[in-house]
Amino acid sequence: MRMDPFIEKLNGLDLSDMFENDFFLTWEKKKDELDAVFAVADALRCLRENNISPRIFDSGLGISLFRDNSTRTRFSFASACNMLGLEVQDLDEGKSQIAHGETIRETSNMISFMADVIGIRDDMYIGKGNAYMHRVVDAVKEGYMDGILEQRPTLVNLQCDIDHPTQSMADLLHMIHESGGVENLRGKKIAMTWAYSPSYGKPLSVPQGIVGLMTRMGMDVTLAHPEGYEIMAEVEEIAKENAKASGGKFTKTNSMKEAFEGADFVYPKSWAPFKAMEKRTELYGAGDFEGINKLEKELLAQNALHKDWECTEEMMNLTKGGKALYLHCLPADITGVSCKAGEVAASVFDRYRVPLFKQASFKPYIIASMIFLSKVKDPQETLAMLEKRGSRRREL
Amino acid sequence: MRMDPFIEKLNGLDLSDMFENDFFLTWEKKKDELDAVFAVADALRCLRENNISPRIFDSGLGISLFRDNSTRTRFSFASACNMLGLEVQDLDEGKSQIAHGETIRETSNMISFMADVIGIRDDMYIGKGNAYMHRVVDAVKEGYMDGILEQRPTLVNLQCDIDHPTQSMADLLHMIHESGGVENLRGKKIAMTWAYSPSYGKPLSVPQGIVGLMTRMGMDVTLAHPEGYEIMAEVEEIAKENAKASGGKFTKTNSMKEAFEGADFVYPKSWAPFKAMEKRTELYGAGDFEGINKLEKELLAQNALHKDWECTEEMMNLTKGGKALYLHCLPADITGVSCKAGEVAASVFDRYRVPLFKQASFKPYIIASMIFLSKVKDPQETLAMLEKRGSRRREL
Amino acid sequence: MRMDPFIEKLNGLDLSDMFENDFFLTWEKKKDELDAVFAVADALRCLRENNISPRIFDSGLGISLFRDNSTRTRFSFASACNMLGLEVQDLDEGKSQIAHGETIRETSNMISFMADVIGIRDDMYIGKGNAYMHRVVDAVKEGYMDGILEQRPTLVNLQCDIDHPTQSMADLLHMIHESGGVENLRGKKIAMTWAYSPSYGKPLSVPQGIVGLMTRMGMDVTLAHPEGYEIMAEVEEIAKENAKASGGKFTKTNSMKEAFEGADFVYPKSWAPFKAMEKRTELYGAGDFEGINKLEKELLAQNALHKDWECTEEMMNLTKGGKALYLHCLPADITGVSCKAGEVAASVFDRYRVPLFKQASFKPYIIASMIFLSKVKDPQETLAMLEKRGSRRREL
Repeated sequence: MRMDPFIEKLNGLDLSDMFENDFFLTWEKKKDELDAVFAVADALRCLRENNISPRIFDSGLGISLFRDNSTRTRFSFASACNMLGLEVQDLDEGKSQIAHGETIRETSNMISFMADVIGIRDDMYIGKGNAYMHRVVDAVKEGYMDGILEQRPTLVNLQCDIDHPTQSMADLLHMIHESGGVENLRGKKIAMTWAYSPSYGKPLSVPQGIVGLMTRMGMDVTLAHPEGYEIMAEVEEIAKENAKASGGKFTKTNSMKEAFEGADFVYPKSWAPFKAMEKRTELYGAGDFEGINKLEKELLAQNALHKDWECTEEMMNLTKGGKALYLHCLPADITGVSCKAGEVAASVFDRYRVPLFKQASFKPYIIASMIFLSKVKDPQETLAMLEKRGSRRREL
Repeated sequence: MRMDPFIEKLNGLDLSDMFENDFFLTWEKKKDELDAVFAVADALRCLRENNISPRIFDSGLGISLFRDNSTRTRFSFASACNMLGLEVQDLDEGKSQIAHGETIRETSNMISFMADVIGIRDDMYIGKGNAYMHRVVDAVKEGYMDGILEQRPTLVNLQCDIDHPTQSMADLLHMIHESGGVENLRGKKIAMTWAYSPSYGKPLSVPQGIVGLMTRMGMDVTLAHPEGYEIMAEVEEIAKENAKASGGKFTKTNSMKEAFEGADFVYPKSWAPFKAMEKRTELYGAGDFEGINKLEKELLAQNALHKDWECTEEMMNLTKGGKALYLHCLPADITGVSCKAGEVAASVFDRYRVPLFKQASFKPYIIASMIFLSKVKDPQETLAMLEKRGSRRREL
Repeated sequence: MRMDPFIEKLNGLDLSDMFENDFFLTWEKKKDELDAVFAVADALRCLRENNISPRIFDSGLGISLFRDNSTRTRFSFASACNMLGLEVQDLDEGKSQIAHGETIRETSNMISFMADVIGIRDDMYIGKGNAYMHRVVDAVKEGYMDGILEQRPTLVNLQCDIDHPTQSMADLLHMIHESGGVENLRGKKIAMTWAYSPSYGKPLSVPQGIVGLMTRMGMDVTLAHPEGYEIMAEVEEIAKENAKASGGKFTKTNSMKEAFEGADFVYPKSWAPFKAMEKRTELYGAGDFEGINKLEKELLAQNALHKDWECTEEMMNLTKGGKALYLHCLPADITGVSCKAGEVAASVFDRYRVPLFKQASFKPYIIASMIFLSKVKDPQETLAMLEKRGSRRREL
């Protein structure tokens, strides 16, 4: 049976808290739970690649709630829902900051009568996105307990101000596949580094998600950025503790070169300074659009001081054998292609295009796996059933 | 068999006009037909709560046509369609007044080649919404008879200028469940009263729908509003006749207190004066935006004269045992929560939140039931088949 | 078996290049392939009309990519996808001209992880739309070969700057049905003529698609327009060659009367001059909005010189027995109905409304057929399987 290796992996894991549960932050999850997400993601992909339908829903809705335009995440969520049999229904609330608590409580219930899953992306406002997700989850849990909702919709965090778990998990699954197994990552060096971009205000959830997750795997994690581009202090603390617990390392530096030296994986990507994002959140709260414009100009000027933070061929030559795996969440700012000066040299990007696209291809499966594990009581049994049922995904 | 009680209820009813028919206004429907909608709504909910799929479509489209932003109705319609196996396709026509007849005729057919159902919400313009729905229905009926459409898409009125049948039917089903049966509503008093809101131009279809429907049930229906907030005279006439025929009562008053006294159910909700809405429709027709702004200001000033029309604890104390069931179509204007002064005191709203959310939870089932009854020839047989088929709604 | 006549038709045809292939332009397709599209469209319609589900997908996405608002095409594509079991996911890129190649390559892959079909409408910019479709197809083909995509999404051209194959094929299937068979079209005269419209910039893809396709069928094709309203020279060349090869005729004239004389089919429809559209594309490219406005005014003035190009009763009287079949892709500019003076007299339009709507009804089936033939290896076997399987499209 094709599902056997995946089922075997799951057999050894503690899945007791996954059913009817949410996915907020990777560091709130047990190592077993992360491993389960990977195993099920691979299992679902195996089914689909063998033209076996992984549908576990005959009908039902997956609600998507975005505070931002998003093509990739939208399509990944839609793909994951569709694969499992859910229809996506979008709730577009625009970029407005969240309304008062009563509205959240009410709206969350009103959209959830037939909802099995809610996917939220809310990464724009520091201190708000994750908190908002919790309010929504609290509202629908209460609604379910009060008998208003027939099923308890579970949450998938599609990016918040703190973490970007579907991204970092997809990235890690890609690294696992490229390395031939998660055990091979132990002791490997990953450089999560800032890189120059001519645009401003890119979210911190990617670097935070990466250092918060990779330190769980016993990896040697280096976070590099120019002074002033600090990430959230709480997440740095978590990374330190994770590294201690897993036997890995967590190092900080202000030198891109130091980070790249001997690295097995490099993840050069722009982000905004945490403190500036905090300030922006305040300015938005106060409706101070002049202040926002001023801040934007300052940040662009600050970025421009660090144009040398680019993933060039010279930088890549510093990595292990000059052959580190280049990672990016896409789209990248490619020098001479999408901008005059950016995060990565065109020749580096070109060489890694295929692995980069593969990296992205794991996201729909990671999301589907998170949904799957929150919806079926006995994942092993269900995977076996799906293979045995053997419904074709498509007629040929 | 779980479906037996519902099937038994349906057995006694005259369903002969429901197949391939539309749902415009509750008072155009026989009492048997309303009862059938309730029985099937409960049956579908029972199936879904027992994880039995109520799908009757393998594929097919449900067209939604809104002239207004609408989260709740959109999700209710999407939920109903999804539950039965239809995919929703939105036609957003914007807020523009309707184009000439040829366009309606043509567009209605062009979007309906694979449409089984059309849900329309068009409540903005007095004298227009319901008329528009009829034109769409006439067009697709003609298209079906001419062999252009393979199936006859049936209409669900998701709110028009006259009635809001999916709302009032959901409200009534909630009241039936709270009272332990429709027979227990006979003689019970319901107060449909105006309430103060700081916003303007709220549709009349809710109060009209409520007095037009509850008078069918032998209830003691009191309509209360300040002078100048009259609803459509035609609907008042209908309510009077209904009350006479059903052995109920229909009373009008300009006193909120009088309405609340001894009431079993209270439905305090803001709406705009009918005559003002008529005037607004004319102004829109003439493109007189200055006139519209002026009218808006006048109406807000007029509203502000009646801030005492609020559902406070004192008001609630006037009701039967101080324990009337508080109803609202949501979202409510809650004093001190969503506005400074509004329709309802926060403490009253808080106490009734769970029943209010339950009230809303009936809407997707009411819509699904209307679709079901217009699509299957023998509802009893189909319900029995669905239970026997026993497809799981979701794998567990 | 109901499918037998369709299967028999397919048996004689060379379908070897259709599986996993795209549909760009009709003249890039073999005559056998066009015949196969018609046979499968009729077969799918037959199944659906007999309440047999034509679903060949359990799950999967159909991506729609529009550069323009489009109700009809959107609904046709959605209907086709739904009928076969695909869920539509829209990618709205707005009217902006296409970004650099890297973005196309990346985005095409990012949206395609679960995509079986991509439908693109891009008819606004001369020299761009079809080229863009090729870039998307090249990107996903490469992605499939590189192992990034699990399946190869195939393209359906929903209208480009050169051809409008789903329109012209639907038009032709309508003509086939009205004539009792494709063999009856041989030698029949079709007048593809320009007509006056008070609006500007209508795409050339319809007349180009019609002359490019109908000349394949041994028809006597006349293209008529005022001087200055030339279509693309390349397409005229193709029409000439087609006519020669098929034993038909391709004639050009600047007289509407000449075109209508003795015609069996007339297709009077406005379009913009090719050279003006070329100029507009350049102006857009340069961001010269003043120039665009100026061009628009010139074009409207130029149009106004030809108000006599209207499909009146007098014109219709010139056709074969005064009874040519009037064709239009809809919506038409109807004199005295949708505009003061337009493409067609109200009485003519009225008389042909039913056949016009039927003409449109073929489009969802043409699209579904194109998808079907690009997705199943053995269409005959699959059609037979669908009938044998006999899943109901809807419960009755």
